[in-house]
Amino acid sequence: MARLVEVTDADDPRLADYRDLRDTQLRRSLEAEHGLFLAEGEKVVRRAVAAGYPPRSFLMSPRWVEGLHDVLEAVDVVCYVAPEPLLEGIVGFHLHRGALASLARTPLPAVADVLAGARTVVVLEDIVDHTNVGSVFRSAAGLGVDAVLLAPRCADPLYRRSVKVSMGTVFSVPWTRVEDWYAAMTDLSAAGFRTVALTLAEDSVDLADAVVGAERLALVLGTEGDGLSARWQASADVRAVIPMAAGVDSLNVAAASAVACYVAVRR
Amino acid sequence: MARLVEVTDADDPRLADYRDLRDTQLRRSLEAEHGLFLAEGEKVVRRAVAAGYPPRSFLMSPRWVEGLHDVLEAVDVVCYVAPEPLLEGIVGFHLHRGALASLARTPLPAVADVLAGARTVVVLEDIVDHTNVGSVFRSAAGLGVDAVLLAPRCADPLYRRSVKVSMGTVFSVPWTRVEDWYAAMTDLSAAGFRTVALTLAEDSVDLADAVVGAERLALVLGTEGDGLSARWQASADVRAVIPMAAGVDSLNVAAASAVACYVAVRR
Repeated sequence: MARLVEVTDADDPRLADYRDLRDTQLRRSLEAEHGLFLAEGEKVVRRAVAAGYPPRSFLMSPRWVEGLHDVLEAVDVVCYVAPEPLLEGIVGFHLHRGALASLARTPLPAVADVLAGARTVVVLEDIVDHTNVGSVFRSAAGLGVDAVLLAPRCADPLYRRSVKVSMGTVFSVPWTRVEDWYAAMTDLSAAGFRTVALTLAEDSVDLADAVVGAERLALVLGTEGDGLSARWQASADVRAVIPMAAGVDSLNVAAASAVACYVAVRR
Repeated sequence: MARLVEVTDADDPRLADYRDLRDTQLRRSLEAEHGLFLAEGEKVVRRAVAAGYPPRSFLMSPRWVEGLHDVLEAVDVVCYVAPEPLLEGIVGFHLHRGALASLARTPLPAVADVLAGARTVVVLEDIVDHTNVGSVFRSAAGLGVDAVLLAPRCADPLYRRSVKVSMGTVFSVPWTRVEDWYAAMTDLSAAGFRTVALTLAEDSVDLADAVVGAERLALVLGTEGDGLSARWQASADVRAVIPMAAGVDSLNVAAASAVACYVAVRR
């Protein structure tokens, strides 16, 4: 059973994990240094714990202690309880769903383990925006994609904003990072995947044609502004595009990835 | 030719149209009262003017005057020129693309005019978030939807954030508001459209099946959280869903609308 500890001071040093949640720079260094990440809201907290991430502590307003009773009962850490205004003082803004957990990151699985048995995977190169990463995970999970691979510099799926926008699907879809960026496409081809890079390249074909008949398929998506690197475009098996009406270049990443997942899974 | 006027004071009353762009409440009342809206960034400014919205004035840093030369040459209003730090002081934050136009809203076209010749339309009920409205317009335009109808309370496509996220497609896709919310679905049916409501209702069928064979089609999307009103659900011809994998309820509005437009246009 979690030990309930009432806190009365926003500067209490025991609450360091929860400080200034909107300060992206601070959070990145703090979370990396301590190997932690935050889950926010009852559902997401529940999913993070169920996925096996070890909780370091919890922080919530009194009314959430009841709703998360079963979760708290099964763990052996501290649950800090703070009235809503104090909570706001700690995290730096008003929390609509005032339940938080700080969880330990676990070692990322091997690429081979994540790909085992997967029929359709999404590969993200250097997506910068945490909202976009979260949205891709939600669409991938909902539309039946089996796994997600990330380039070394892709934004963190366990960053609070990613987790939230993903509706906690970052805890259910198997994912990891590729270590060898340069060989990522050829490694996937060697593993039996047809790699389909979404890009406005000269030789891009209609996505619907690009995916037909692929036994194993990897959909490859690039950075918001500049798109995929030249290396990944050149080393993918096929370059493909979602055909656009006149006058529009492209969809945003969240929309494009949703359409691409839908088309790919139904190939 | 626009008259270039250098400004030196962030509180200059002639700049009222451009004040505090991040204050949503203030902007809403100011823009409604004066019948104006703002376009931001060279491309979007250019598209807004090209679409026939009469400019009231422009505001930009010196380096954009050159790039918008042809646009400024063709109009007869004032273009205020301000160095970047002053511009920031006026609008309330750093503008990445420091070119703005204040334009007059024009009367909304009649529903019948917007629907004339349209094969596929999107109907938005009460979408709250301007980012979502902009994203739906961008996807609709890119994927070949012919027009967009909005319920009376749907968020404003001409709000700065909507315009920006839409990449200016709010100026190219024909759109208007329906006046009679109660009869909106039956009016569309009477005009020959199959109305397909995206909803998790009990009798929802697979979207791909719902759109097959429709000569004219209206895709109907509801509010972010609560979805479509009971009235619109009940009075639509068909209720439909994008099938989801186990454990995921739904996609976000931007992703769902993109998939739905893709499927609908290719029916």
